[in-house]
Amino acid sequence: MTLDNFSVVLVEPKYDGNIGSVARIMKNFGFSRLVLVNPPKLGKEARAMAMHGRDIMENAVKLKSFKQLEGRFDFLVATSSVTATDKNYLRTPILPEHLSRTLEVKGNIALIFGREDIGLSNEEIESCDLLLNIPSNPEYPTLNLSHSVGILLYELSKGIWTGRLKKKKKFQELSGVEKKVLLEKFNALVDLAQKKDFDRRLAKKTFRQIISRAFISSGEASTMIGIMRKAGDAIRRNKDKASKQ
Amino acid sequence: MTLDNFSVVLVEPKYDGNIGSVARIMKNFGFSRLVLVNPPKLGKEARAMAMHGRDIMENAVKLKSFKQLEGRFDFLVATSSVTATDKNYLRTPILPEHLSRTLEVKGNIALIFGREDIGLSNEEIESCDLLLNIPSNPEYPTLNLSHSVGILLYELSKGIWTGRLKKKKKFQELSGVEKKVLLEKFNALVDLAQKKDFDRRLAKKTFRQIISRAFISSGEASTMIGIMRKAGDAIRRNKDKASKQ
Repeated sequence: MTLDNFSVVLVEPKYDGNIGSVARIMKNFGFSRLVLVNPPKLGKEARAMAMHGRDIMENAVKLKSFKQLEGRFDFLVATSSVTATDKNYLRTPILPEHLSRTLEVKGNIALIFGREDIGLSNEEIESCDLLLNIPSNPEYPTLNLSHSVGILLYELSKGIWTGRLKKKKKFQELSGVEKKVLLEKFNALVDLAQKKDFDRRLAKKTFRQIISRAFISSGEASTMIGIMRKAGDAIRRNKDKASKQ
Repeated sequence: MTLDNFSVVLVEPKYDGNIGSVARIMKNFGFSRLVLVNPPKLGKEARAMAMHGRDIMENAVKLKSFKQLEGRFDFLVATSSVTATDKNYLRTPILPEHLSRTLEVKGNIALIFGREDIGLSNEEIESCDLLLNIPSNPEYPTLNLSHSVGILLYELSKGIWTGRLKKKKKFQELSGVEKKVLLEKFNALVDLAQKKDFDRRLAKKTFRQIISRAFISSGEASTMIGIMRKAGDAIRRNKDKASKQ
């Protein structure tokens, strides 16, 4: 499955600016299929907000009613800021991170977002396969329409875009060998600088924990290995000189 | 740590509507501290977009320059849509999900977002502890300002709103002063061990990033300060001996 299996469906959006914002955030995360159910006229505001997502907006499929969604998709996912217990639905909402599992399955999936003011009707939600809820502060759970879309698309696509980052070696973690060398160099420096056994062990353990928690890159490891080695050399060299003279 | 330890900082935002949108999404996710560096006048558009987040916008701290951020926070986190290899070696970005680790530590953290058109300057990013990147389509990575904020705050708070984040035993985060001393001791060691200016700068920057990413504790900082000091002393002492004899 690719991101093209997902369509963003806006049901009766009121403000054309929001449609533009949705088109832009779709482009940011690599989605392209936009469906508009009974939308307003797309004017200046929509174009201004869409930025480089304008092609998505212009290629949007326009439908006259919610019912026309049926039969077009394998899965209909309703989104709501109101959770099950609030409204007494018989269904339990899933979280955005659960939906990213659908990346492992096949089919066309509609991510359906309701009106800015009243969201989706009970009837519309009932006709969907899943109800999705973006976790938020119960005191004010109603997100701006394009923010709801953005957060869901971010969650769905982040594995893909970070996978890409990994390929480009940006997040290339240090290898086991590099970590071993880095710890050896640091430990050697500790042995040169610190006499007390307890303090030596504490320093070594601490450095190892810090390195692990920081998820350091291969390049960073190499820089740190370099400086540890140089510092160790400087101590040794001067010691030798001092003892020779 | 609570969400109140985080401040959202907008650096020279152009459009007051965006400030309103940011205030709203902050309210949605339970954040309240907003800092505006050299903002425009907050007019009708800002109030319209802020909705129930209007109090956050009205209580925002206004600063005249980026420099005024220094000293106000324990950690400065820069955000950028441009990643390391795109620009230069000094930028190794972390992901939003990495930042949620900070929920386990103490301290005041500034989440810093740049201008709508040109983001943060290199100099501004250099003066921060961490660089954060929201994974997105490299063909069009520039998110709308309030979307960037929303996605980061969603990632930080989702554990809380889904109730999954249990109260863990917190460890004492190192203070700004301890961090300063640790960096000074390490930098002094680098200057003693490494002659080349470029390599010195790279080593210092790398260590700062590692320390920031690992969110080390006060005790760990103290251990590391001890070993850096000892190593520096060992080099200096032996140098002195060598030159005296």
